[in-house]
Amino acid sequence: MQKASLVKGTRDFGPIELARRNYIFDIIRTVFKSYGFAGIETPSMETLDTLMGKYGDEGDTLLFKILNNGDILEQAKNNLNSNNGLKNAISDKGLRYDLTVPFARYTAMNRHDIKMPFKRYQMQAVWRADRPQKGRYREFWQCDADTIGTSSLLCEMESIEILDKVFQLLGIDVIIHINHRKLLEGFSQSLGMHENFIDFTVAIDKLDKIGIEGVCNELAAKKIDIQAFKNHEKLLSPIPFNSNSLKTIEIQLANNDLALQGLSELLSVYKLLGKLHNQVLLDMSLARGLSYYTGAIFEVKLVDKTLGSVAAGGRYDNLTEVFGVKDISGIGFSFGADRIYDVLVQKNQFPATLNPFADVLICPMEENTIAFAAEMARTLRSNTQQSVMVFPQAQKLGKQLDYANALNMKYAIIIGSNEIESQIFAIKNLLEGKQEHLDMPSLINLLK
Amino acid sequence: MQKASLVKGTRDFGPIELARRNYIFDIIRTVFKSYGFAGIETPSMETLDTLMGKYGDEGDTLLFKILNNGDILEQAKNNLNSNNGLKNAISDKGLRYDLTVPFARYTAMNRHDIKMPFKRYQMQAVWRADRPQKGRYREFWQCDADTIGTSSLLCEMESIEILDKVFQLLGIDVIIHINHRKLLEGFSQSLGMHENFIDFTVAIDKLDKIGIEGVCNELAAKKIDIQAFKNHEKLLSPIPFNSNSLKTIEIQLANNDLALQGLSELLSVYKLLGKLHNQVLLDMSLARGLSYYTGAIFEVKLVDKTLGSVAAGGRYDNLTEVFGVKDISGIGFSFGADRIYDVLVQKNQFPATLNPFADVLICPMEENTIAFAAEMARTLRSNTQQSVMVFPQAQKLGKQLDYANALNMKYAIIIGSNEIESQIFAIKNLLEGKQEHLDMPSLINLLK
Repeated sequence: MQKASLVKGTRDFGPIELARRNYIFDIIRTVFKSYGFAGIETPSMETLDTLMGKYGDEGDTLLFKILNNGDILEQAKNNLNSNNGLKNAISDKGLRYDLTVPFARYTAMNRHDIKMPFKRYQMQAVWRADRPQKGRYREFWQCDADTIGTSSLLCEMESIEILDKVFQLLGIDVIIHINHRKLLEGFSQSLGMHENFIDFTVAIDKLDKIGIEGVCNELAAKKIDIQAFKNHEKLLSPIPFNSNSLKTIEIQLANNDLALQGLSELLSVYKLLGKLHNQVLLDMSLARGLSYYTGAIFEVKLVDKTLGSVAAGGRYDNLTEVFGVKDISGIGFSFGADRIYDVLVQKNQFPATLNPFADVLICPMEENTIAFAAEMARTLRSNTQQSVMVFPQAQKLGKQLDYANALNMKYAIIIGSNEIESQIFAIKNLLEGKQEHLDMPSLINLLK
Repeated sequence: MQKASLVKGTRDFGPIELARRNYIFDIIRTVFKSYGFAGIETPSMETLDTLMGKYGDEGDTLLFKILNNGDILEQAKNNLNSNNGLKNAISDKGLRYDLTVPFARYTAMNRHDIKMPFKRYQMQAVWRADRPQKGRYREFWQCDADTIGTSSLLCEMESIEILDKVFQLLGIDVIIHINHRKLLEGFSQSLGMHENFIDFTVAIDKLDKIGIEGVCNELAAKKIDIQAFKNHEKLLSPIPFNSNSLKTIEIQLANNDLALQGLSELLSVYKLLGKLHNQVLLDMSLARGLSYYTGAIFEVKLVDKTLGSVAAGGRYDNLTEVFGVKDISGIGFSFGADRIYDVLVQKNQFPATLNPFADVLICPMEENTIAFAAEMARTLRSNTQQSVMVFPQAQKLGKQLDYANALNMKYAIIIGSNEIESQIFAIKNLLEGKQEHLDMPSLINLLK
């Protein structure tokens, strides 16, 4: 006998968990599709050529690598000098680490068939050998949407709209933070920190956690002159995203062309926006993914800040350059399905109607009423939208009703020989506790 | 620059392929749910403890093993004597090989929370390091439904019904072959072949391919006396599954209790069945999975036999015994989604209405009409069910219409300054080629 156990950092999704996850996926997918995003899926495995070197050194160590099949002893033989050398010798593929690199690989391979602009969404698992902890898994799900092959700012607007819409439908109040790489880079130039742009962004990205003093200390530690920064630190406070705010910043950074360019793009995005449900903040301290993003940057946080970001994205250039296909720019964003799940659990906010089990249990009272029960199930399935289960044995009614209640079913129909003779059936509404006696047509009507 | 390529035996699913696959999955899932099966999902990775030894020696070699993280050099060091020894030292988990073993592992771990009978479905990818060839992939999808915790023959009947219903909805004509382990075992006893039961089943399972002479040769090669078999070989011809057929066989195997038991169970199943769309054959040559199945066995084949089986299943005992949980018997079956996909492509039978792209393209004629186009898109999205895309740049109408046509869109709406002024909009039905001029309320009505 062996003990049944899960691989560390992975989870089973039982019926209720899966129904809840699909509730989230369905909302995100529906919104994506309503904007004309088309779904694709890529394989779970990619070659290590595709994966390695795309996620930084740390990313490389977090890849799950798959052992080559066949004789690895031979492959290992002359490669026992280093850990990495051995790994490379006996593994040439790994599990998907995110959805962006596979999308880039897909785009490069299919560039002659793809009509640009291409709006694609992708909702799949990714794997990272991170240390598992509360809310962080080794197998988790990303829901990405990207529009590539156009630099139109309409896409920036749609990104904000979609982020807003999805969280509205999920009933989660969020704040959408927006920034722009050019604005941030221009700001750092105007502070005389252009040489230290990366240090600067790394520091201000921590503003939330370490405060303005912490940021100053961090910059000072890098021997960066912080006087100019101190004079402008107020710019880092998030302000409502609107034309007034943009104007205010424009006045303060009026002498920097790059900043003005970023501000002008953000103003165009603002003008395209309709009415939103959630708040949008212009947040110059938002500095994520700047090795990758070249235009607008987004991050979505909970209003009550109990968790980190629940979605993020931005505009990038050269999605596919590493695969030899140039000049494909785009904009994308990603929802963290697992975090959203945790939020909805915390807030106890999944719809009560999500029921993965049958709606109706038909309860045969004797072995010889099972055939009739099965026939009734056929009739109900083809004439109503209900999911119908026949209890497969003639157990005591109490036991069958316990079963139906435990699985949150809505109705139980009792089939004994009397019912078959009279063609009048007792149907119990399990949620309301009341019982009716109906003939077959009325039964169908009730369940329709 | 690096060449973009796929891992051998894996596939991308572009928008059209994915829409088609989801069409198949949706049909299967809808039927599963209508019978009260609840979905679960298990992780892509399982421990090698869970996976190894469950699929025979060949299965073990076909597992994709995942390299341990951390220092494998150290782990490898004292394990360089054998290929398997090395593999075991540096890998403790692997990719899911099927959905049955993970389901057994799940059931064992959650036995105290699961209400029996438990009807679960599971539709996920599995991975096997098989040699890739036409129609055989290293990443492919299984769609399983199992009812566990009951030995009621109602489940056998439901299995046939569901197999029938799914292929009816897919528009694929199939033949459902049914057999019973007890019938087959009784038959082999009555032939004096009980000692050679496995050889016997291996041989007759090939009847389709090697014919009755081939089967005899194979049995003879095993030094099995084939005279009795030759006298009864006609029993191996598939016959319609009904009470007459069962009676005919009963007469011929009247002296074997085990066979009679199998026949009696099959008769009970037959009596529970309603009207089916596809043919069911009692096929005593069906001998698959007999190391596992203990009761009824199913296999679904295409009427035109262009491909092997498209679904299969049977009743088993002791699903979870290896995990120390006894007496959980059940019945399950599995659809091969990839094969079904290939059949529908071959028959050109996917619905023409499956369109993964937007339904409506709004075409801005000038840059300054994009904002209006975006506003119209919001209105149409919230008032109709259509998926609406705004072309993100003001390109020539011809180019925009080419785009809409290439993506199989249904409507294009043209937005120039005249349209904005008059509030009358040209809408082109791209499928029928006709154009109308409508105000906003009529536009909404048309698209509703």
